Amino acid sequence: MKENYLIAMVTDFGLKDGFVGTMKGVILGINPSAKIVDISHDISPQNIMEASYVLKSSSPYFPDGTIFLVVIDPGVGSARKVIIIKTSRFLYLGPDNGVLSGIYNQKEDEIIEITDKTYFLPEISNTFHGRDIFAPVAAYLSTGISPYLMGVKTGNIKTINNIDPFIDAQNRVCGTIIYKDIFGNLITNLREDFFHKYGIDFKNINIKDRIINGLSNSYSEKSPGELLAIKGSSGYIEIAINQGNAGELLQAGIGDRFTVNSEQ
Amino acid sequence: MKENYLIAMVTDFGLKDGFVGTMKGVILGINPSAKIVDISHDISPQNIMEASYVLKSSSPYFPDGTIFLVVIDPGVGSARKVIIIKTSRFLYLGPDNGVLSGIYNQKEDEIIEITDKTYFLPEISNTFHGRDIFAPVAAYLSTGISPYLMGVKTGNIKTINNIDPFIDAQNRVCGTIIYKDIFGNLITNLREDFFHKYGIDFKNINIKDRIINGLSNSYSEKSPGELLAIKGSSGYIEIAINQGNAGELLQAGIGDRFTVNSEQ
Amino acid sequence: MKENYLIAMVTDFGLKDGFVGTMKGVILGINPSAKIVDISHDISPQNIMEASYVLKSSSPYFPDGTIFLVVIDPGVGSARKVIIIKTSRFLYLGPDNGVLSGIYNQKEDEIIEITDKTYFLPEISNTFHGRDIFAPVAAYLSTGISPYLMGVKTGNIKTINNIDPFIDAQNRVCGTIIYKDIFGNLITNLREDFFHKYGIDFKNINIKDRIINGLSNSYSEKSPGELLAIKGSSGYIEIAINQGNAGELLQAGIGDRFTVNSEQ
Repeated sequence: MKENYLIAMVTDFGLKDGFVGTMKGVILGINPSAKIVDISHDISPQNIMEASYVLKSSSPYFPDGTIFLVVIDPGVGSARKVIIIKTSRFLYLGPDNGVLSGIYNQKEDEIIEITDKTYFLPEISNTFHGRDIFAPVAAYLSTGISPYLMGVKTGNIKTINNIDPFIDAQNRVCGTIIYKDIFGNLITNLREDFFHKYGIDFKNINIKDRIINGLSNSYSEKSPGELLAIKGSSGYIEIAINQGNAGELLQAGIGDRFTVNSEQ
Repeated sequence: MKENYLIAMVTDFGLKDGFVGTMKGVILGINPSAKIVDISHDISPQNIMEASYVLKSSSPYFPDGTIFLVVIDPGVGSARKVIIIKTSRFLYLGPDNGVLSGIYNQKEDEIIEITDKTYFLPEISNTFHGRDIFAPVAAYLSTGISPYLMGVKTGNIKTINNIDPFIDAQNRVCGTIIYKDIFGNLITNLREDFFHKYGIDFKNINIKDRIINGLSNSYSEKSPGELLAIKGSSGYIEIAINQGNAGELLQAGIGDRFTVNSEQ
Repeated sequence: MKENYLIAMVTDFGLKDGFVGTMKGVILGINPSAKIVDISHDISPQNIMEASYVLKSSSPYFPDGTIFLVVIDPGVGSARKVIIIKTSRFLYLGPDNGVLSGIYNQKEDEIIEITDKTYFLPEISNTFHGRDIFAPVAAYLSTGISPYLMGVKTGNIKTINNIDPFIDAQNRVCGTIIYKDIFGNLITNLREDFFHKYGIDFKNINIKDRIINGLSNSYSEKSPGELLAIKGSSGYIEIAINQGNAGELLQAGIGDRFTVNSEQ
């Protein structure tokens, strides 16, 4: 792992109240040369599923050694742990509430529970651990202090229910929308390799009584306004509209179900 | 005071129109090594009260020497002054319209009115002093130029009406909501020390015909969905809901009043 | 041109989904010392007109050598080109869909079509060229690599319809709203020099059956709540309200027309 210096943030703090700026003030007080990148601060309040998807789709593109600082923390002030997941490329810091389970690989990664208050602010509130615990820990990590010096290795983390696609009695693939982006693209829990694995050919998607035929290679393969399915930039199949908003047209969002019919 | 290099911004410019980016362009043109942190650009348009609270709750967490660049400026183009408040730790730069009065300590701080146009852009519009005056002044400050070289010491600033809590004829503490954050937490103008000062014991809050008993130590002390009062991260007592939105439930926001009954 | 190091971004990606953070991760992986400034990520989805205005009004204030990374890209995945406009001060990188035509000066600037995939990510999706093409190209430019090494000079770019003001049969100047900012100020396509050029004196604006007399020098020349016309910070005449929202009051926005009557 290269030197740690980049801190990339995912929170649900929004950009109005000054919470994020306050955390950056704390970080730069500890490590004035830390470089901080915002991934998202607009995760829906306390929405661990959304944060998990955003983190998973963005973090592979960061340079080795990046410290991901993830604060979606409905349990702030309770007994939930503060953990670091150490992967071959990155450190992920966040509360142990499932938000980091999406990037955790049990075979390769290590989990450290942060316990040493030396690396926290002297006074710890019960409502803003982003400022009092997570920001200073991230800052010290960015100075090169090993996470192993900050706590103890542990073997378990909380997980969130993965919504995996499945095949029903009629031999249809049943999928779920796991994210809706700013353009109204509906990201599904289906990857192309699911079809390869089960030897199924993708024929069409049936969602909200609409049929979307085939997989497109680009938005522009369809006319403006037309629904399409496409392999999205995160690797998942997405339902989209060329120059339009699929979420709006279909009145669909996270948690909505659909089926895929296979080639006859 | 350590070397000045960090500039932390509070504005109501939003993030769409490019105003903030333009200011950063100006700053980096003058001081290419300036480090800029966003505290908030989403203050409600021209809302000095909101900006004052956000600035007050975030600035203590920044490193010594930070320059706070505050542009909430409904009087742009009029005769209102441009001032710097110099405290023992920080420089605060903004219009003299009350937005800086919340952090001003008359006994310890100094006020400098900026008058030397050398530190402005050559051409000054009447509508965007953030770009033409505030950004370049902040940039020159960040290069280490003393504020005393930029203008003259003055003894007065405009203030905003502080909404202080008071005790009414029925011996109830009367408080006001001064801010509502992204989670719907309602920040009051009450600190715990108010109760110590007057020897009053906190019994319950009566707001919008709801009674909230006692002061909680953490959100999770109450069941999800239940109202609670808690000492917030800014030191003020907040009204919140564990995993919920108190502002929405109570239909309450800035300016709303409540009473606190004391222990019998 | 000074050394290239600053990258300034304009996109319609919003700040929730992590698209912008992902692009920054890619940039900092290629050039860890790149400095990145956000101009806007909240351009209305696929709105080339808005992006063009924001870019044009902000970019002059950036230091020489700045690389503008503009990703408003409804044609992503289609055959639209990726181009750089090289001006005397700046590099502008974006899709060839008209978004860069507002800053292009045919007499002075050069256009380079980027064709060398060496400067792209190894795997290129069909839906997120911001990450796979634009971010890495900007990053390599910021290391000092010449745009001429990345592609071929070309002579044409796509343009968008400029909405120029004109003079009608009744000798009235006919203008159009080209942008509405966060304060509800309505930016018109009229500059003062239009009046000088045609020897016309500005008398009043007639918009949505309201008459706005004269040109004000500052918002505060009018009473709070009163409509006014003023030379805005971008050089265009704006319709505004002192401490109010003109767009809301007039129910007006981009594309709305108005007339200017000249002095009798």
